[in-house]
Amino acid sequence: MTGKVYLIGAGPGDPELMTVKAIRMLKEADAVVYDRLVSDEIIAMANPDAKMIFVGKSPKCHTVPQERINEILAEEALAGRTVARLKGGDPLIFGRGSEEAAHLVAQGVEVEYAPGITAAQGAASVTGVPLTHRGLATGVQYVTGHRQADNALDLDWKKLADPDTTLVVYMGVANIGQIAVGLMTEGLPGSTPVMAISRVSSPEESRMVSTLNRVAQDTRDAGLKPPTLFVIGKVVSLYDTALLSQEIEVAAHA
Amino acid sequence: MTGKVYLIGAGPGDPELMTVKAIRMLKEADAVVYDRLVSDEIIAMANPDAKMIFVGKSPKCHTVPQERINEILAEEALAGRTVARLKGGDPLIFGRGSEEAAHLVAQGVEVEYAPGITAAQGAASVTGVPLTHRGLATGVQYVTGHRQADNALDLDWKKLADPDTTLVVYMGVANIGQIAVGLMTEGLPGSTPVMAISRVSSPEESRMVSTLNRVAQDTRDAGLKPPTLFVIGKVVSLYDTALLSQEIEVAAHA
Repeated sequence: MTGKVYLIGAGPGDPELMTVKAIRMLKEADAVVYDRLVSDEIIAMANPDAKMIFVGKSPKCHTVPQERINEILAEEALAGRTVARLKGGDPLIFGRGSEEAAHLVAQGVEVEYAPGITAAQGAASVTGVPLTHRGLATGVQYVTGHRQADNALDLDWKKLADPDTTLVVYMGVANIGQIAVGLMTEGLPGSTPVMAISRVSSPEESRMVSTLNRVAQDTRDAGLKPPTLFVIGKVVSLYDTALLSQEIEVAAHA
Repeated sequence: MTGKVYLIGAGPGDPELMTVKAIRMLKEADAVVYDRLVSDEIIAMANPDAKMIFVGKSPKCHTVPQERINEILAEEALAGRTVARLKGGDPLIFGRGSEEAAHLVAQGVEVEYAPGITAAQGAASVTGVPLTHRGLATGVQYVTGHRQADNALDLDWKKLADPDTTLVVYMGVANIGQIAVGLMTEGLPGSTPVMAISRVSSPEESRMVSTLNRVAQDTRDAGLKPPTLFVIGKVVSLYDTALLSQEIEVAAHA
């Protein structure tokens, strides 16, 4: 009998930010396929008898290529197992969940999703900096600042440089200088505030508030490492007053 | 002793899509302030002894004005209560959570957030239609198609009409015709696929797949009512094959 695959968003880091559905699916699974963006605490919630399969990925070093991950998921399900595929954040926002699903559906394997809190929402919730706010941002846009295999960033700076939209850049540490220049060239002021957060909602979380014209230098100085999220826009001006006791770790000059 | 306010994202509808943190905060609260976007099942999870305060809002009929909601939250917290403010979706994405927080912080009331699965993520997870997908969408943008007090929609169609970005329109039923025309005028093909989902992940969920040049008529014909979410972009072309057994309720002509 064919099993099935649960494509599960594990959220940004804090296990308490997982949905009830995500945890239920994780506990049900006979096999758990996970990568390095998912914390030990979350993995520990799996059934102790489940088969645990690590397919850790990092930006420049795919431990297991995506094609092989697709095959592993199909093999486990076709062997009759209920498979939990855990992903950081949300499986359908930069999570490649739909690529894995396409492979599975083509082989007749049933897929079900549990959405997850994406890093942008995690960053907003821990800092109180909203993604939209009347008078500051009428919308929010998520892009990724990373391209596979060192391909060039092909972002449309003119469309992204909107002072009334919050721009969230995932996986942008390596290219934040190029991103900032692209946005300023298309008219975003250099004074536009930027918040950078790495490993949001985890014990290793670190934060920085800067401006578009200094963010590349400040990111290097602060030693921020992937996974780091950048939130760019007027909403970041609320950082200092968004919570009663904000833990501020602002770049030294700010 | 001053209490505090939890600004809680209740997610798109299905109680299982709430985070563990959101449920923990809801159960801890002595007072619960909620509106009509939050389901009875979720409200039933509150402490049975909690003071329940309904401040239901609908697009054209604010039962309780936002300013009064701000005051209620502050009054309850200053009376020493732990207050759960439940919001549909995520409090920091079109949720006005940060407006409520600003009022509370100014009065010395501590605020803490629980993020929530926003409707766009709910729609993606129930249909398998991703918000980003290699070759189809390099990013995703959320905007609202509704303005307070019948103000004109001031969206920047040129920036929104990006064939490589998924555009999600919240609260767009009344203005979807204007939105579609704006996007087509700025170059999005009329054949761009559009998915509309109302009350996503609830027992009353209904769906429709259409195209940009027909979506206004199809939305009227289907009788879709707020809250309805529109997902516009090439990712919607995956709808038919995204899950093994997709429940398709496509507009008749499609």
